[in-house]
Amino acid sequence: MSQYIYGIDLGGTTVKMGLFDGEGTIVEKWEIPTRKEDSGANILPDIAASIAEKNQEKGITAKDILGIGIGVPGPITEDGQVLKCVNLGWGIFSVAEELQKLTGVSKVKVGNDANVAALGEQWRGGGRGFDSIVMVTLGTGVGGGIILNGRILTGSNGAAGEIGHLSVNPHETRSCACGKKGCLEQYSSATGITRMSAEKLKESDQPSELRQYDHPITGLELFKAYKNGDGLAKEIVGVFSHYLGKGLSHVAAVVDPQAFVIGGGVSKNGQIVIDVIKEEYEKNVMFALKNKQFRLAELGNDAGMYGAVRMVLG
Amino acid sequence: MSQYIYGIDLGGTTVKMGLFDGEGTIVEKWEIPTRKEDSGANILPDIAASIAEKNQEKGITAKDILGIGIGVPGPITEDGQVLKCVNLGWGIFSVAEELQKLTGVSKVKVGNDANVAALGEQWRGGGRGFDSIVMVTLGTGVGGGIILNGRILTGSNGAAGEIGHLSVNPHETRSCACGKKGCLEQYSSATGITRMSAEKLKESDQPSELRQYDHPITGLELFKAYKNGDGLAKEIVGVFSHYLGKGLSHVAAVVDPQAFVIGGGVSKNGQIVIDVIKEEYEKNVMFALKNKQFRLAELGNDAGMYGAVRMVLG
Repeated sequence: MSQYIYGIDLGGTTVKMGLFDGEGTIVEKWEIPTRKEDSGANILPDIAASIAEKNQEKGITAKDILGIGIGVPGPITEDGQVLKCVNLGWGIFSVAEELQKLTGVSKVKVGNDANVAALGEQWRGGGRGFDSIVMVTLGTGVGGGIILNGRILTGSNGAAGEIGHLSVNPHETRSCACGKKGCLEQYSSATGITRMSAEKLKESDQPSELRQYDHPITGLELFKAYKNGDGLAKEIVGVFSHYLGKGLSHVAAVVDPQAFVIGGGVSKNGQIVIDVIKEEYEKNVMFALKNKQFRLAELGNDAGMYGAVRMVLG
Repeated sequence: MSQYIYGIDLGGTTVKMGLFDGEGTIVEKWEIPTRKEDSGANILPDIAASIAEKNQEKGITAKDILGIGIGVPGPITEDGQVLKCVNLGWGIFSVAEELQKLTGVSKVKVGNDANVAALGEQWRGGGRGFDSIVMVTLGTGVGGGIILNGRILTGSNGAAGEIGHLSVNPHETRSCACGKKGCLEQYSSATGITRMSAEKLKESDQPSELRQYDHPITGLELFKAYKNGDGLAKEIVGVFSHYLGKGLSHVAAVVDPQAFVIGGGVSKNGQIVIDVIKEEYEKNVMFALKNKQFRLAELGNDAGMYGAVRMVLG
């Protein structure tokens, strides 16, 4: 008898669904749309229907299913309660219980999507070989997920690892989306790179290859110019890495992980991103925390599905 | 048959020894000197001898002892290995194994002293009723101990909770004892208070009741003047609390605890210390992390013994 696990990554636009075998090897993956109308009332039924359909297609029965894991874009308590999910229109309820009822599967594990992706990277991605990692996702914002001894650190309100909102610049006058000023993600996210680039280009007359673009500067363009020795790009990368290195030094002083795993769109620039962050990190940490491993994430958009499966196995 | 636990707090000058019953109620406590000569070779044998003596006095036999817990002033790995203890002259070895051999007790639990004290406060002190706390000790330095779900967060090199060395002031020109500049403990420790007070008194001509003292200003004197509305004291308390509140906002963004427990000499000024820290904390954290509980530590120098006992029971 074969055994199966469903690993699900619930996003604001699509639900990434994965069928895995009992050892955590992926068998098949597919996507369904996330229907947010009616306060997201269809989302879990849609997922349950997609699972039922896949079961039928593969001849999988309830007793073959070890469990279902799901990552959700909002704060989740340790017992699988969602505390509000603005993106999906959800209020407060138990995702685990609901999905148990809808699927008849008793083992349902729920986690915050960033945390679940971190678990996936620790298990099968850039964090392989380490028990305790901090995953840093450099995308629209700066996300964090902390894995200690192979388990997600949830925090008392599901807000552990909210490193994008570390206060790193006391002199900032612009507000972050969270309402504070000087948050890490104002500088070290894709959004931060675009904003800082626009400002620098406007403020100065310095020649720069960044001036060739007639659209907002992306991380890819910035790091390309940086590698070419562009002075303005160097300044911007300097701010990006300064605050990120400092922020991660704070994280290290609190949880002392074995490694940092860097993912998200900005990390697609590769090793250079690790190098600039690590340099600033080392400047800011005490001796006992120096020489941590820095790795690139490897699973991309599949990290959440893997982490969801890991929750079921763990 | 009665059961007993030994809870031990090994300090640089004295060893605090406690005999507890099987429920964790203290039966008796006493101290022995910490003999640091010969690279601290006598310390564990002295402790074992003191336990043997107490056993004989009370008619306790090996089978009556549930275990021994001990807090040690240095980094400790999760399996009870000390990684170097400069204060005691110790190198790298297993404190747990050594103490097992010397006492014949098989269950020996070892932790870093700050972490063990945090566990004691969470279990029986200011953190009672919370599973996850951050203990902040405002003494010569700023120490930290993190308890998550009732367990010590050790970190991969025993350096979790090293919050005294969070980089909080990028403009600092003086070096911290750790070699970095702008560490939290340069401002928010007893030492920091004394230094800042001396500097402020020298720099300005402002009248202040702090000028009456012909010795280095203590936390007690500073907070007394602060409560009396002294302007200079207000400035100094402002710096103390600004960096501490900000530092704790970093800690919250990483582990999202239920409560902070504030201990150490400076906390003896009572609720006013909590009030000034909390105000600055709230300014620096994102909404999801607001309204944490702040409590004063309650066990004083006994916290380490209690935490050591908790390790055995837990």
